[in-house]
Amino acid sequence: MLPLQNFKDYINQNALFTADDKILLAVSGGRDSVLMVHLFKLSGYNFGIAHCNFNLRGEESVRDEHFVKMLAATLDIPFYVKHFQTKDYAHIHKVSIQMAARELRYRWFEEIRNQDNYAFIALAQHQDDAIETVLLNLTRGTGIAGLHGILPKRGNLIRPLLFLSRAEINEIVEKEQVDYVEDSSNLSTNYARNKIRLKVLPQLKEINANLEVTFQHNIQRFADTEMVLQKVVADLKAGLLISKQNAIHISIAEIKRLLPQKLLLFELLKPYGFTEHLIAEVLQALDKQSGLSFFSASHQLTLDREDLILIALKEKEQRHLLLHAQSPHVVLPEAELTWFTIAKSVFEQEYEFERDHNMAYLDAEKLIYPLILRSRQAGDRFKPMGMNNFKKLSDLFIDEKVPVTKKDDIPILVNGNGEIIWVIGFRQDNRYRISPTTKNVTILTYRNLHITISKQS
Amino acid sequence: MLPLQNFKDYINQNALFTADDKILLAVSGGRDSVLMVHLFKLSGYNFGIAHCNFNLRGEESVRDEHFVKMLAATLDIPFYVKHFQTKDYAHIHKVSIQMAARELRYRWFEEIRNQDNYAFIALAQHQDDAIETVLLNLTRGTGIAGLHGILPKRGNLIRPLLFLSRAEINEIVEKEQVDYVEDSSNLSTNYARNKIRLKVLPQLKEINANLEVTFQHNIQRFADTEMVLQKVVADLKAGLLISKQNAIHISIAEIKRLLPQKLLLFELLKPYGFTEHLIAEVLQALDKQSGLSFFSASHQLTLDREDLILIALKEKEQRHLLLHAQSPHVVLPEAELTWFTIAKSVFEQEYEFERDHNMAYLDAEKLIYPLILRSRQAGDRFKPMGMNNFKKLSDLFIDEKVPVTKKDDIPILVNGNGEIIWVIGFRQDNRYRISPTTKNVTILTYRNLHITISKQS
Repeated sequence: MLPLQNFKDYINQNALFTADDKILLAVSGGRDSVLMVHLFKLSGYNFGIAHCNFNLRGEESVRDEHFVKMLAATLDIPFYVKHFQTKDYAHIHKVSIQMAARELRYRWFEEIRNQDNYAFIALAQHQDDAIETVLLNLTRGTGIAGLHGILPKRGNLIRPLLFLSRAEINEIVEKEQVDYVEDSSNLSTNYARNKIRLKVLPQLKEINANLEVTFQHNIQRFADTEMVLQKVVADLKAGLLISKQNAIHISIAEIKRLLPQKLLLFELLKPYGFTEHLIAEVLQALDKQSGLSFFSASHQLTLDREDLILIALKEKEQRHLLLHAQSPHVVLPEAELTWFTIAKSVFEQEYEFERDHNMAYLDAEKLIYPLILRSRQAGDRFKPMGMNNFKKLSDLFIDEKVPVTKKDDIPILVNGNGEIIWVIGFRQDNRYRISPTTKNVTILTYRNLHITISKQS
Repeated sequence: MLPLQNFKDYINQNALFTADDKILLAVSGGRDSVLMVHLFKLSGYNFGIAHCNFNLRGEESVRDEHFVKMLAATLDIPFYVKHFQTKDYAHIHKVSIQMAARELRYRWFEEIRNQDNYAFIALAQHQDDAIETVLLNLTRGTGIAGLHGILPKRGNLIRPLLFLSRAEINEIVEKEQVDYVEDSSNLSTNYARNKIRLKVLPQLKEINANLEVTFQHNIQRFADTEMVLQKVVADLKAGLLISKQNAIHISIAEIKRLLPQKLLLFELLKPYGFTEHLIAEVLQALDKQSGLSFFSASHQLTLDREDLILIALKEKEQRHLLLHAQSPHVVLPEAELTWFTIAKSVFEQEYEFERDHNMAYLDAEKLIYPLILRSRQAGDRFKPMGMNNFKKLSDLFIDEKVPVTKKDDIPILVNGNGEIIWVIGFRQDNRYRISPTTKNVTILTYRNLHITISKQS
């Protein structure tokens, strides 16, 4: 029997939607999303099915689309399908395949939602997805915002299967002989999440057999705590950030009264691209000379006599962002750069080498911190991967047909000694590649964040 | 070489103490605390050494005391030692051996601190201890307060070794041939923490080789976030809890304006012993009939027309606390009760059976929730472990020489069907023991919390 009552209870208790709402279900054809379809059908809710064909898995993509189409026809449910040229999009927009699929998907869902008056988009994520996200964020470093992981409701998105664990879904699908398609790419998701899923969660479940429910409660508490923090920050913003002409002034005396100082100033200035590490430096400088400036990728923060003055950088202004070893997570206005280091032996054994121009795999010992993230400069040259000779950056941009208007937007990672390490999105430098003498590997990931899901209208 | 500069930097950056302060070091003789002694000595700080002999490990206890005494003499450092009858204390005060050792230790440290003007007590905990605590709390369920784990400074306690990982300490101690004693009980600490230490942390370190530093930053962010939450709660307390005669009134209209409602009302009422689960029930009742009452072990909360009214229960009043399966963590005014369930096979293989009257091991399938936690009632009887006949509770209290004044304070755990499961601190019932047919084991832990470390004067 399908857990129909629990499903309805979960929807009602979390106020995900009401019986009057029309819901758009994102359905890949895998067991989670197919189970979600059957639960919606049996509950008598009003819904449609949307299936994305990303054209990434040849015959399998065709099979999946056909399967979902037949499922919708059998159950007599409105069906939406769209074919995406995901690889082309990723190439053109210089984002990873994964990011491209994400952007294309949510944009299209929003189109259907607005056009056909769906109240929410339903995703079939379950409890284990949520726990994995929390543990992954913790392992890579996070504040409170990274601890609530996946919430049952966020903007236009709802996740009505969060009351079930992966094991429960597998059991139900098997017992009820629910038909679904197996996504072969599901079996090869990324290294870190697999490790958490296969090696860490089973251990934690031996300590607490009820881990999924415990984490549901944890996550709700953390989400509520973040809400408290965000309200405090919003009040501070209204009180402390004073607009004067083209600048924002923040009274140094007021900053000194903040408690806890670092967290609150960081939360205030995060939207302007400042990192936690830079904020620590700003705080240390507060009592020292005025005139000192700090830069994010988009803003300049200057220490005046009584105020910190925040000014947006001009479009063409040189941007130099220092990357410190201690804060391997840099938030830029529309992107983020994270990195971590592992032993080469571990890398070779376990890391699934993703050929993605938004990732770089570097010889950790050759990096001289702070690294520098900047846009192109006259005379820039580097040794593209596999080459022993220098190539001018300007020639690379010509070869890659980068439009003139975009050239200044390409982020370039530079070593402490001035050598280019990585032209992000294009090529990494041959001098920093993993070689037989490499002991540790530093893995960098650049993520474009300019996809936002619009608030419910 | 000892990491002297890093040690001093850590102390200064975290403002743990100044060169003028006299510090009392808690030294067991194990590698962590001995390394701490040498770092203090070489840094030229003013300090004393305190060693507790808990008389729990026979010859080994004698050996350890002798070792630390000789270390202090060799380095010419004031030495304090005290012998504790830990088992007697645990028996008399009905607390676990571990809790008894903890209480005795901190009480004695505070005595020396006040008497000989030590500014702080230094503990030799390291980064891995802190990470383990966070993961353990998360696994068992926690709010933000359980996420900062161990902080470098908290009240009178400082932890100057938190800049080192366990691996680093082991390496230093080996390289420098630092002499120490091996505590055999260190090797058999509890099941859950060992699992985190040996099975979970190594996996997470393969995802992030820099895990210890990442967690130091995580922990600081969480501690700061908790500070923000506590300030908000303190402001709410001042505004919302209105004292009238013997009661505290809280306006229902104000409660309805709270956002997030559950977290904030829980934080407001937690000091009065109310659980998160009870708060959820209070919130659900707000719009319904007035006159409804909710009970914690110490307080009654009554839903009046416009206010929630909070009244302390009279000493002798019957206390019935309902324990729900969904909230396996109950906070009482001076104690807490937590529980979790594991498969019997796991229990048998891996759980170190702690013979401790503050723990109970029960056949999970026999429990009918909600369980009830209450004090004695006329006619109470049960089947003490190993017996097939009933025994009157009053007879047990006579056998165990419980003073009349204490009899109402003994917490009794009762099943949903009215049968006594566990006379906490004394005996569990034979009917709920683990038997050959048991499938899952529920492990309950009762912890007395009435030890508080006084704030720095």
